[in-house]
Amino acid sequence: MNKLAIYHKSKSYYAYAVSENKLHIRLRTAFADFDKVILVYGDKYSWHHKKELRMECVLSDVEYDYYQIEIFERSKRFTYYFKLIRRGEVHFFTEAGIVGNILESKFSEYFFQYPYINETDLHVVPEWIHSVVCYQIFPERFCNGNPDLNPPGTVEWGTEPTTDNFMGGDLPGIISKLEYLKELGINVIYMTPFFKSNSSHKYDIIDYFEIDPHFGTKEDFKELVDKAHGFGMKVFLDAVFNHSATDFFAFRDVVENEEKSKYKDWFFIKKFPIDMKKISYAEQNATSEDWYILDGEEVLSYECFGYYSIMPKLDTNNPELQDYLINVGKYWIKEFNVDGWRLDVSNEISHTFWRKFRQQVKALNKDALIIGEIWDNGEPWLRGDQFDGAMNYGLTQAVKDHFARNIIDKETFRVRINKLLMRNTDTANSAMLNLLDSHDTERMLTSLKENEDKMIMCLGIVYTFIGIPMIYYGTEIGMTGENDPGCRKCMIWDSNKWNKKIFETVKKLIKIRTDEKALHYGNFKWVDIHEELITYTRSYENESILVIINNTAEPIKYDLLSDYENTVELIGNKQYNSIEKYGLKILKFFDKVDGLYCNGTYVVGIGRFE
Amino acid sequence: MNKLAIYHKSKSYYAYAVSENKLHIRLRTAFADFDKVILVYGDKYSWHHKKELRMECVLSDVEYDYYQIEIFERSKRFTYYFKLIRRGEVHFFTEAGIVGNILESKFSEYFFQYPYINETDLHVVPEWIHSVVCYQIFPERFCNGNPDLNPPGTVEWGTEPTTDNFMGGDLPGIISKLEYLKELGINVIYMTPFFKSNSSHKYDIIDYFEIDPHFGTKEDFKELVDKAHGFGMKVFLDAVFNHSATDFFAFRDVVENEEKSKYKDWFFIKKFPIDMKKISYAEQNATSEDWYILDGEEVLSYECFGYYSIMPKLDTNNPELQDYLINVGKYWIKEFNVDGWRLDVSNEISHTFWRKFRQQVKALNKDALIIGEIWDNGEPWLRGDQFDGAMNYGLTQAVKDHFARNIIDKETFRVRINKLLMRNTDTANSAMLNLLDSHDTERMLTSLKENEDKMIMCLGIVYTFIGIPMIYYGTEIGMTGENDPGCRKCMIWDSNKWNKKIFETVKKLIKIRTDEKALHYGNFKWVDIHEELITYTRSYENESILVIINNTAEPIKYDLLSDYENTVELIGNKQYNSIEKYGLKILKFFDKVDGLYCNGTYVVGIGRFE
Repeated sequence: MNKLAIYHKSKSYYAYAVSENKLHIRLRTAFADFDKVILVYGDKYSWHHKKELRMECVLSDVEYDYYQIEIFERSKRFTYYFKLIRRGEVHFFTEAGIVGNILESKFSEYFFQYPYINETDLHVVPEWIHSVVCYQIFPERFCNGNPDLNPPGTVEWGTEPTTDNFMGGDLPGIISKLEYLKELGINVIYMTPFFKSNSSHKYDIIDYFEIDPHFGTKEDFKELVDKAHGFGMKVFLDAVFNHSATDFFAFRDVVENEEKSKYKDWFFIKKFPIDMKKISYAEQNATSEDWYILDGEEVLSYECFGYYSIMPKLDTNNPELQDYLINVGKYWIKEFNVDGWRLDVSNEISHTFWRKFRQQVKALNKDALIIGEIWDNGEPWLRGDQFDGAMNYGLTQAVKDHFARNIIDKETFRVRINKLLMRNTDTANSAMLNLLDSHDTERMLTSLKENEDKMIMCLGIVYTFIGIPMIYYGTEIGMTGENDPGCRKCMIWDSNKWNKKIFETVKKLIKIRTDEKALHYGNFKWVDIHEELITYTRSYENESILVIINNTAEPIKYDLLSDYENTVELIGNKQYNSIEKYGLKILKFFDKVDGLYCNGTYVVGIGRFE
Repeated sequence: MNKLAIYHKSKSYYAYAVSENKLHIRLRTAFADFDKVILVYGDKYSWHHKKELRMECVLSDVEYDYYQIEIFERSKRFTYYFKLIRRGEVHFFTEAGIVGNILESKFSEYFFQYPYINETDLHVVPEWIHSVVCYQIFPERFCNGNPDLNPPGTVEWGTEPTTDNFMGGDLPGIISKLEYLKELGINVIYMTPFFKSNSSHKYDIIDYFEIDPHFGTKEDFKELVDKAHGFGMKVFLDAVFNHSATDFFAFRDVVENEEKSKYKDWFFIKKFPIDMKKISYAEQNATSEDWYILDGEEVLSYECFGYYSIMPKLDTNNPELQDYLINVGKYWIKEFNVDGWRLDVSNEISHTFWRKFRQQVKALNKDALIIGEIWDNGEPWLRGDQFDGAMNYGLTQAVKDHFARNIIDKETFRVRINKLLMRNTDTANSAMLNLLDSHDTERMLTSLKENEDKMIMCLGIVYTFIGIPMIYYGTEIGMTGENDPGCRKCMIWDSNKWNKKIFETVKKLIKIRTDEKALHYGNFKWVDIHEELITYTRSYENESILVIINNTAEPIKYDLLSDYENTVELIGNKQYNSIEKYGLKILKFFDKVDGLYCNGTYVVGIGRFE
């Protein structure tokens, strides 16, 4: 027994409320360490009514087994401990650790507690997120709908992007392509910023209440949202609250009035007069990263996003600024009916701010989606008081490591995926924005050395995983590109230049994701049908989706139980018991499919488990 | 290597800010698994300036080694990973787990992040807590200062307590004994409730803004606080916000006006008309616990504290009630200058409420202390946004298990103490209220079968541990008692009936705790001078306190380095290298004392480490 590997923590992502009376309890043990795990639980004031339930091993890999169970108490109070059974021996696991035996009358003080479920502490995410597919638009590069709006010096559409050039993308362009997106099957659009700003990316905002004139007008945006809504599409925007542009009115006021400015506490000012050291993003990257230190002295007059002096950092601890930014968040919802916010650099902003933001935004529209930009572990923001979900770069990384970088094998890929699923609650997992790439990364097809088959396997994962699938504009047609600026090329509208195989597959995957309830609500389980294949199911009620991925250079035959008349191949080679090299297959079973890889035994279970 | 035992989590009690630029980083590994642990850290926007520092193994036991380090970044941004060195081999531990090798340019995406320290997210506790010693008073049983206030039917002082009887304790009585407490060395008083209520314990409150007339008047309380403050003592009170009495005006209004009552959402009403099933606490305990269920139907009209119908549960999710209760919290601070609140049944109250409560109470008095009643793991409330600390019943349990119940040995005692110290931040640990017993437990002397030597060892721990030491009234004179009502006996004021040995030791321990900076700010380390002894140090600057406890039936000789001229025995047998059976010894060194029990080697280090 690896006692030291056992993990549980009360009132955390290992014990969390999913409704007024229901709790999810998780337990982690070393792989194959226990034959059975039983949860003993009840209301501590009514302990003689305690119940014992066997916990299911929901995820397993070469490192750990993960157990989970949903339990109910009318009183909303939960006291519990675990019975871990190994070779007939029972080990009692409590807040005090493993104890040899439990004398309940005396030792109840050691039991784990979820003392009471309070409604206002619940993590409630919008119901609509479960069935959607999302599309990320970088407005300057998506479509030029009105050349009259082009900024001076706009280069020809399709020119190689630099950090400084402009191609003329705008809101009328997006409006003109809503039908294209509808046709593709998209029903949520995430737009990176379009607020008044001098850059192409618009992450240095001059006016949070205005649309950049090179992108169009508020009337254009109103038309965009209304038309999208008419198509059944949601639209959410990018909230850049970590920093502003130096031309933001409040920063200008500080530069001018210094100590007397009433906005001086909206920023982290280090000294007056303010020296903006205005050098461009590109220059800063190109020259020494140490430009801000001179002879050991910091020359910055104020904190920035990173060390980019063109983006002064906002002090989101300041109550007046908090109110101002929350009003920004509310304004675009109230006036334009937008459906939520993606939060730029959300992890550098104060938790106190985000709590206020959530309260006020959700009070205005309880269905507004709130997604944080967090590249690593977003759990501290995903407890119900701040965000619904986060951008799932952890998934991006695991996929890239296995399929592109080839630095983790199939078993380690499973380890990594399990870690991702178990570092957040199921609620937060359902609201993660799953992506392969974005305006901040190399495009996945480039990482994959433009191997379209591998790209399709990766897309297969994104569209069948738990969370909201999102593709970055152009992914559907096989666009490539290195990290910024390479990933911000102009969208290609000449369909002769599209990768048709990728396009058709994405269309199919979108339809599958949109249609299949098992992909909206289904649990996630690894199933082992062949040692070289990555295989998992999503099951919900009496339907299951089975995903088979062959990331090897050989076709593979396997022995899948075939006594299922109602099996449909949604994607694949039309051969039931084999998959082509670098292949993706998605099967639908009109039955419950479950699999266990637990306690050393690989089990294929088609309708055999419950 | 036990890879599965390695634990770290970013932005948690394993990585937390202690000031604007400083972070504490912790890592847990299996005992003796690594020869060296190195933290590699820096600002991710300035990563070429990264630093590498060896982490100290601060705590160790037969299960785990715990490493900790304090790091600084001017930019307040921290990116980091761990190098774990075992037999010359380096293992890189990141957010993605143990990775074989780090190619920094590509893998920085896996590093742990503490993205930015925001001031409003810091856990700031009052500075005054570090040097204080606290005394808990249960007003009905402490001292009867004015018999005219006695409730009808008051029994003679010293009568065996029941759950219903009254002995006449009151505020004038407490005032009259402040000098006694001052003499004892006490500088903080925690008073259980004295608000208007029909019970002896006053946890079922009728009026939160009034003092129970049997306890005295607001003038009395003003005098009490002013006199205490004059003596340099703080006073904090008991906030009972989980439930009220049925005679609380709001509940009476609900009973009367039902659906039309504007207070109906202050409670969890299940049905009208309200049937209070008024049976006493004692009756409920004595009769079936199932009185609230009849033929499978719940007969309660409203949720209660437990199933005690005399205490209707308050719905702290309700914003109007939240404001009302916060005003209670503010009223006693504003009008009477009280120094903080202990929060009754704090773990059943909504987090949203506690966040508001903290903000408003700390805005009124940043030095107000906020302590939650949490019996198990209080960590979810101790992140800076809710409480300063919690009642440390975990310490009570560990002490009781080793010294009274004899169910855990010395090694397991160490395991348990380490778990307690490592399940919260150092900040929260410093604000834990360390206690051996209270009005809700059996008295420790009774648990110890009235063994005064053992009691002294336990008291030695409370007064030398990290956190705020608190004794329950009468502990200092050796009072005994089973759990409620036995632990609520009248204070004995006839000093002929006191246990003089305990009394003199408590007085000495209080003085030591009050005088010694090493006990206010010092780190905590186990030192192994003899395998049968429990030994630890608290060290701060150039002074150390060494605590030696012999919980065996034989005197023990040990081999302590004795080349220290400036050693003072604060408590003990006046023999430098021996300790009596069931003995407590406290030595002071005018030097830094450090000890390591790490990697399989017991080390005694007196001024040898740094």
